[in-house]
Amino acid sequence: MTDMHPAADRGFTTQEFEQRTAAAQKIMAGLGLDALLLTTEPEVRYFTGFDTIFWLSPTRPWFVVIPAEGAPIAVIPEIGGPSMSLTWISDVRTWLAPQPEDDGISLLVETLREVMPNGGTLGLPMGHETHVRIPAADFQRLQERLDGVSVADGTDVVRRLRMVKSRSEIAKIARICSIASSAFEELPNYIKAGDTERQAFAKFKIDLLQKGADDVPYLVGSSGLGGFEDVINRPTDRMIEDGSMLLLDTGALWGGYSCDFDRNYAFGHASDEARSAYDLAWRATEAGLQAARPGITTTYLWGVMAKVLEDGGCSGHQIGRMGHGLGMQVTEWPSLMPGDNTVIEEGMVLTLEPGLSFGGGKMMLHEENIVIREDGAELLSRRAARELPIIT
Amino acid sequence: MTDMHPAADRGFTTQEFEQRTAAAQKIMAGLGLDALLLTTEPEVRYFTGFDTIFWLSPTRPWFVVIPAEGAPIAVIPEIGGPSMSLTWISDVRTWLAPQPEDDGISLLVETLREVMPNGGTLGLPMGHETHVRIPAADFQRLQERLDGVSVADGTDVVRRLRMVKSRSEIAKIARICSIASSAFEELPNYIKAGDTERQAFAKFKIDLLQKGADDVPYLVGSSGLGGFEDVINRPTDRMIEDGSMLLLDTGALWGGYSCDFDRNYAFGHASDEARSAYDLAWRATEAGLQAARPGITTTYLWGVMAKVLEDGGCSGHQIGRMGHGLGMQVTEWPSLMPGDNTVIEEGMVLTLEPGLSFGGGKMMLHEENIVIREDGAELLSRRAARELPIIT
Repeated sequence: MTDMHPAADRGFTTQEFEQRTAAAQKIMAGLGLDALLLTTEPEVRYFTGFDTIFWLSPTRPWFVVIPAEGAPIAVIPEIGGPSMSLTWISDVRTWLAPQPEDDGISLLVETLREVMPNGGTLGLPMGHETHVRIPAADFQRLQERLDGVSVADGTDVVRRLRMVKSRSEIAKIARICSIASSAFEELPNYIKAGDTERQAFAKFKIDLLQKGADDVPYLVGSSGLGGFEDVINRPTDRMIEDGSMLLLDTGALWGGYSCDFDRNYAFGHASDEARSAYDLAWRATEAGLQAARPGITTTYLWGVMAKVLEDGGCSGHQIGRMGHGLGMQVTEWPSLMPGDNTVIEEGMVLTLEPGLSFGGGKMMLHEENIVIREDGAELLSRRAARELPIIT
Repeated sequence: MTDMHPAADRGFTTQEFEQRTAAAQKIMAGLGLDALLLTTEPEVRYFTGFDTIFWLSPTRPWFVVIPAEGAPIAVIPEIGGPSMSLTWISDVRTWLAPQPEDDGISLLVETLREVMPNGGTLGLPMGHETHVRIPAADFQRLQERLDGVSVADGTDVVRRLRMVKSRSEIAKIARICSIASSAFEELPNYIKAGDTERQAFAKFKIDLLQKGADDVPYLVGSSGLGGFEDVINRPTDRMIEDGSMLLLDTGALWGGYSCDFDRNYAFGHASDEARSAYDLAWRATEAGLQAARPGITTTYLWGVMAKVLEDGGCSGHQIGRMGHGLGMQVTEWPSLMPGDNTVIEEGMVLTLEPGLSFGGGKMMLHEENIVIREDGAELLSRRAARELPIIT
């Protein structure tokens, strides 16, 4: 697959950040937003390129302000100054955090007053799949101090931009999908009956790192005799035995972009029931692959896969959707489900993720990653085997 | 070090969860809170034992309600039902998420009305180092629908409980500190001049996993000739050369608990300046180790280390503090810094993290992990070498 893409670089050109900013400002103007305030990791990274795992620490808030015109302004803890200075952002304002009594709020208010001298409307992502990553008390303080400024939902700005990936973003996702595909394909050589789930997960994670993944923040799965009943588990000390099935689902990273797909394996042998469930999920995915193209909606695409499952006598699963966007985060807008109704566009990267219950509470879940091209779906993950792989 | 602790188990007894809940309810009563609402991963895990990496997906909110009496209630997406049912929580209420129009809000409101039939005050962590992990628009909707209920800051409930670790929590932290200590001690055998930062980070991460870490979510560091200027970097393609210095700082996990300490290395040779900076940071840490004990404050402990740095002619660094709490998260309350003034108690797990600038913008940062015992500090990390290690 990666042969189809230019060699991926981890970073982005300044031009790409400028384009993102200009595109945001155009949407902001349409929404009547005089500035946009961002507080979460993917949004800050999307507009600045600032990339650190330091976000795992809940201690310090980080802010980026997108004015109506001109480049973004970073308002960040001093510890991040050196890293942020290496990005294309030239206006970097810092304070010595942590400072609980005023953890950047005054500096942020000052910055917002500067970019909104006549008040107006401040956009802030407040909608589905967003949150405000600062203490709620600080958010209240911020609103109280922003006299003459109203706060409005700015979700649409980041949602619309981030849903459609650039060539360079797609190249990164393609690369990590290729790495994960290789690791899944080799897995039968190094995971065996007799391993515990914990050992199996660790081997797979190490193989992903050795094959070139930058990190493996997301790895879930499950095992069980004849199938499993849960799909978001961390590994346990349960032993994989003859007759077990194993699901591994990974969001590994390359250049800050994620894959998100899974693979199923049986050990020794598999029941007809499990083979049929695999076949049905495979065919539902295939229908999704054939149907995905610009112009249809996420809900229509969900329906295509749901129809295959329904025709096969299944009523879906408890995951609530059959796929989603994929990029900097392991799940992003949109959702393939009833009611979403997002029009699919060229450049969207999506997961197709039909699943079903079988055999009294056991689950079967398939997942592939695709990018939407002018004429349909292009696989980024290498397609799952046509029949349930059996590791002997 | 681990010899000093009982063999660590990954989980906790039901009794421990009951004790945590009872302790929370006692603090809640003192604060006049009729229920407590939790929305973030560590808090949900602390009270339920629910442990999944699925939180990386921003799509779905998760709620736990602690009533004034009785066990916590989980109000969660259906996908989490099977996992939550394996915990000690028996009252698990689910909805089919995602459902943007009403993503659990009605179910949560219903639950809160049930546990607060006469209204009252709902606690919610709103203070420093917390955030509300649901869309801001949903938080507004929630408040509007909670007639007769006022919302008050409940930070103190989780802060006071989580700051003081149980025997079982300490055993987990001790175990991951021991694993990371071994990986740091062996590092000179497998990281060499000629490696890129990216290769060095990957080798270290793989070694941590092979030595038994469950995961390595946090790994930052930096390298540079004669020193480095940044301490929260992801690795780059910069080559480590003769004369380089390397800092690695890891928050690896075992049983859901984290270590957080770093080590410094020089390659081939080191300047007197760098050796002196190392010595000064080592001595500041040592002063902290000797001073740490129940009854003093975090600010006093900060002052002890700051004094050593000041006497050595240094004025600190841009990190804003010289240590912090450690547990489920790589950084937790309290902070060792001016103004924090938390009284240190037996059972607190802390980092000591003095640092300084030298040689025109280069940084030196030391870090150890300790648990506070009746009579002083017990190291959980194995003490850094007395002199700057040189890898040849």
